[in-house]
Amino acid sequence: MERKKATNVVYHRESVTREAREKLTGHRSFTVWFTGLPASGKSTLAMATEQRLHKNGCSTYVLDGDNVRHGLNSNLGFSPEDRQENIRRLAEVAKLFREAGVINLTAFISPYKRERSLARSLAGADDFIEVFVDCPVEVCEQRDPKGMYEKARKGIIKEYTGISAPYEVPESPEVHLRTDQLTVDECVTKLIDYLAEKKLISVE
Amino acid sequence: MERKKATNVVYHRESVTREAREKLTGHRSFTVWFTGLPASGKSTLAMATEQRLHKNGCSTYVLDGDNVRHGLNSNLGFSPEDRQENIRRLAEVAKLFREAGVINLTAFISPYKRERSLARSLAGADDFIEVFVDCPVEVCEQRDPKGMYEKARKGIIKEYTGISAPYEVPESPEVHLRTDQLTVDECVTKLIDYLAEKKLISVE
Repeated sequence: MERKKATNVVYHRESVTREAREKLTGHRSFTVWFTGLPASGKSTLAMATEQRLHKNGCSTYVLDGDNVRHGLNSNLGFSPEDRQENIRRLAEVAKLFREAGVINLTAFISPYKRERSLARSLAGADDFIEVFVDCPVEVCEQRDPKGMYEKARKGIIKEYTGISAPYEVPESPEVHLRTDQLTVDECVTKLIDYLAEKKLISVE
Repeated sequence: MERKKATNVVYHRESVTREAREKLTGHRSFTVWFTGLPASGKSTLAMATEQRLHKNGCSTYVLDGDNVRHGLNSNLGFSPEDRQENIRRLAEVAKLFREAGVINLTAFISPYKRERSLARSLAGADDFIEVFVDCPVEVCEQRDPKGMYEKARKGIIKEYTGISAPYEVPESPEVHLRTDQLTVDECVTKLIDYLAEKKLISVE
């Protein structure tokens, strides 16, 4: 065995480029950032959009409370600092997925403009699609699948977005979906049409 | 617009299954966890392996200091607690990539058995391939591409793995590579052969 060959081992680093990944998958990689009130339909739309993209042959992944809050961010609570760190980590993970060539869809309330701006700032101009999942709080409260709005109204949960904590409405989201007026399928179609129009994906 | 349709929006959640993702990519998703001394060749092997897998049509991503320490884990230092949190987050991110159908390769010293065990415990039995990147510390020190060993010898850097901090040798890694005895290509071939033998990938 010749030692010299192997001592070079640390010098020849070459990562697979994002372009090479995009050539393999046949599509661009980007983040679709769903934001909206609790029970506005973020996770549902993220998953339904993912289903549609997957059927179209795209490499995809949904980041939401179920897989992020219970894993990577399980050591974070709901204080302002922890909420900010929650979104910071999420934005960094979204960046890793973009670099990996995966279309990632995030479904978090993300009520503050500054945290959505942070997430956007980590992405290239065409790599961040902010989707405002818009639904009147009254309708969200009627849905209330986890009984959280009820608990917030009773004061059992403090600082609940839409009831006792603010939600800062996006001023210029790339896509605006009214989930009280459109069906899930209609919302997904509107979003997919946007992505195709921007040539981020090609729809068969 | 009929409101009733859309108020169901939160109930129909269905994520793309891991099986469906694996059918799309044509391969299993798993973590290749490279561990070894500084300058043993972890990142180089991770990237060279990724290149080979990518050419084979696999969906891949390397997680290493460059993209994790400077992003997601930029708020962590090198205290024992921070090192543990660094590996915990890394293991959780690796899990997300597995779920997304991406073969992920991690290149961190990860000197302690208990942190490697934690990473393994988050994965299924066949989803975690520990690769011991083995090289005598003398050879690593000769390579010393970043001058870190020299600084550690001079005491400028405290608690440097291999010099002034322990490296716990893996007892039963899935793959054992001697980078002082094999070339990069030989190491990668040995690893790829293992993955093919375990039917985690099919090599064309």
